[in-house]
Amino acid sequence: MNRELTDLIRSAGRMVLNAGHISVEQKEGHANFVTETDRAVQDYLIEGLSRVFPEAVFFAEEKDDNVLTDKPTFIIDPIDGTTNFFRRRRMSSISIGLCEHCKPVLALTYNPYTDELFTAEKGKGAFCGDTRLHVSDYPPERSLIEFGSAPYYSELAEVTARSIYHLLTDFGDVRRTGSAVIDLMNVAAGLSEGTFEWHLKPWDFCAGSLIVEEAGGRTGRIEGGDLTYEAGQSVMTANPRCFDALRECLLKAKL
Amino acid sequence: MNRELTDLIRSAGRMVLNAGHISVEQKEGHANFVTETDRAVQDYLIEGLSRVFPEAVFFAEEKDDNVLTDKPTFIIDPIDGTTNFFRRRRMSSISIGLCEHCKPVLALTYNPYTDELFTAEKGKGAFCGDTRLHVSDYPPERSLIEFGSAPYYSELAEVTARSIYHLLTDFGDVRRTGSAVIDLMNVAAGLSEGTFEWHLKPWDFCAGSLIVEEAGGRTGRIEGGDLTYEAGQSVMTANPRCFDALRECLLKAKL
Repeated sequence: MNRELTDLIRSAGRMVLNAGHISVEQKEGHANFVTETDRAVQDYLIEGLSRVFPEAVFFAEEKDDNVLTDKPTFIIDPIDGTTNFFRRRRMSSISIGLCEHCKPVLALTYNPYTDELFTAEKGKGAFCGDTRLHVSDYPPERSLIEFGSAPYYSELAEVTARSIYHLLTDFGDVRRTGSAVIDLMNVAAGLSEGTFEWHLKPWDFCAGSLIVEEAGGRTGRIEGGDLTYEAGQSVMTANPRCFDALRECLLKAKL
Repeated sequence: MNRELTDLIRSAGRMVLNAGHISVEQKEGHANFVTETDRAVQDYLIEGLSRVFPEAVFFAEEKDDNVLTDKPTFIIDPIDGTTNFFRRRRMSSISIGLCEHCKPVLALTYNPYTDELFTAEKGKGAFCGDTRLHVSDYPPERSLIEFGSAPYYSELAEVTARSIYHLLTDFGDVRRTGSAVIDLMNVAAGLSEGTFEWHLKPWDFCAGSLIVEEAGGRTGRIEGGDLTYEAGQSVMTANPRCFDALRECLLKAKL
């Protein structure tokens, strides 16, 4: 992995760790917040990445007019888990995915609280530091599934709650960290069997989906079909042993 | 806080951290597991506590014939978050509560992964290390509520899922760590506004409930009334601003 990129994301992580007083602003939607640190980290990443890849385009959470084209595009979440960040729950990550022809080919996520750097390049495997990652082989009935609650979309509360019901009945148990990126890293590292959220934005899952795939996991939209990276959509990932059963279980919640 | 007790729980924490290969056994109920480490930590705590308080009685997760009487009784969970422990999610704690006349008067919990020691004595406040703890003052609409899924009781999946629905609609967002003790410590430390689980055992909440109360929070059964410590029951805790609204919200799920 490019050393300039790993140095950059680690430096951005120090900005997260060193944030003093955090002032929070409400964004549109239920429970959707942004802080000055989100914006400062994003500016820092865009400036640094522009130096390394002058031709790159940026698609980022705290930026308007995001459009994905065939050009090399960095899809960035400066702080995934913003609520966790300003509540000081120590459960957030920085996410950088590079798309070529609209698909991720390179990914980095960094958890500054645990100092864990996750990386993947298309076709070359996924790593945490120097350790190769592999998804688990647990079956559905012994699984842990990490869920996102799509908190900005009150209209998804019902399908989310019904998903929990079916998972608690048909699968093992559920977890909710409050960071989609950390959920995806947990699947890649074999700490859980799958993730889902009924609506995520590309910056939430671009880097993480490549890392899960390169760790041997499967990804897709809950309703079927592959993930795309130009707009919001439902997202699920799982180890190969759980993927089809997880999709079937979640689709029961949609009926 | 008694130095012998804090040394003891920290030593027990090292047993959790240093566990090598972890062999897991299924207990009765859905997704209910025990490991050799749970049993070894419990034996170690009972032996150590017996030396400090020779007259004490023990009431502990991995022990049969638990009875709570008016005698001084230690209620112990050797590893709260056993699934997290054997899945290596670094999200488990040790819990020791001392009851006199069937109510907790002294509490210690220790998270070996973060090296955080939480303590409380009845009427003397709650602490993390030397720092006095206070619950948050966030209102329901901006709250985070930590939930337990009562995973051993499939018959509670429906009320749990309906609780999530009402919380996502009426409150802020939810979290699930997989450790009731860590959930309670998060409320005591002001990292979230409340917790609930439709069935917990006394070792899950004895120490934690005193720590939440001494941090200024409220505790009770979801259906109403105070917690008791002789048997399993529903449990909720919250900061004073959220407590009544949380109970009302959860009771909607029971209808």
